[in-house]
Amino acid sequence: MNSQASPRDRILHTAHDLFYRDGIRATGIDRVIADSGVTKVTFYRHFPSKNDLVQAFLDYRHERWIAWFVDALGRHGARDGKLARAVVESMREWFESETFRGCAFINSVVELGGSLPDVLDVSRHHKQSMVDAVSMFLSASARRRGDAVTIAVAIDGAIIRAQYDETPAAALKALTRLLRDFDGV
Amino acid sequence: MNSQASPRDRILHTAHDLFYRDGIRATGIDRVIADSGVTKVTFYRHFPSKNDLVQAFLDYRHERWIAWFVDALGRHGARDGKLARAVVESMREWFESETFRGCAFINSVVELGGSLPDVLDVSRHHKQSMVDAVSMFLSASARRRGDAVTIAVAIDGAIIRAQYDETPAAALKALTRLLRDFDGV
Repeated sequence: MNSQASPRDRILHTAHDLFYRDGIRATGIDRVIADSGVTKVTFYRHFPSKNDLVQAFLDYRHERWIAWFVDALGRHGARDGKLARAVVESMREWFESETFRGCAFINSVVELGGSLPDVLDVSRHHKQSMVDAVSMFLSASARRRGDAVTIAVAIDGAIIRAQYDETPAAALKALTRLLRDFDGV
Repeated sequence: MNSQASPRDRILHTAHDLFYRDGIRATGIDRVIADSGVTKVTFYRHFPSKNDLVQAFLDYRHERWIAWFVDALGRHGARDGKLARAVVESMREWFESETFRGCAFINSVVELGGSLPDVLDVSRHHKQSMVDAVSMFLSASARRRGDAVTIAVAIDGAIIRAQYDETPAAALKALTRLLRDFDGV
């Protein structure tokens, strides 16, 4: 935690780590306040209700994940017509990270979809951004065919599998197989 | 609701519909008791705690879903070397049903994974049964290659997409594309 961060950012980063790791419902406001080292007054000035904090968490998580995803695809060579391999290697990087707990947006829809209607909209927007990120690396004809949605569906399946299994090996093998026709398209 | 069913079955079927539709945490025991038309005494004789009911729900849902899945694959022609098409048509049947709310096991792991460790085991068992069901329709060489896991990962991705979207069209199109090499394998 960067102690130079503003109180709002400290709260948000703390909430991010707790919400993502333990779930949104399971994480109480008191825990967020205690872990971020702010006073209750400061907390409620920035986030009058838990829903405000959840909304800010989803926005922050969205920006952070998409920025990582675009960067990872580039680092793993997506620009050289090797999109499928870049997708698999990017997912390997994420699945093998210690903090991996699946897709925060899939998780949030399941946890809160019924009780907080915004969550579904925010999550759809996130998934569309994932499709758009993949699209950037596709040829015009592949884009017209809707390949980006297909690749995103394979990614979501792999995320779910990696969330279940003790190691990401099976998820990555399946993803590699599902995407084998998508290099250089 | 079949009024001839035993009290235990009436509770279980009621809990199934409520847990699957509204989520496990969001469904209170009092609602289950009221909707199943049993007394509190009867309820607690069969299910001393909510966790007992959740466990019974997961077992019941598992058996019901796998039985439906194997039956649907057969009805949609999986035995004729058209597994991919049968998988897509089975998912279409499910996604288009009015009660579709995604995979109860994916949902339960997200909702309860941390707080009820059994859920992860039960859900892994469910996913393995899904793989086994797909395996039954594969050739020996496809089985050795691990095609059943690959197909199951594509199915999970499509389930997630169908849960997000207002219609299952994009999920089914992506699933068709991902599985196009898997007919007759």
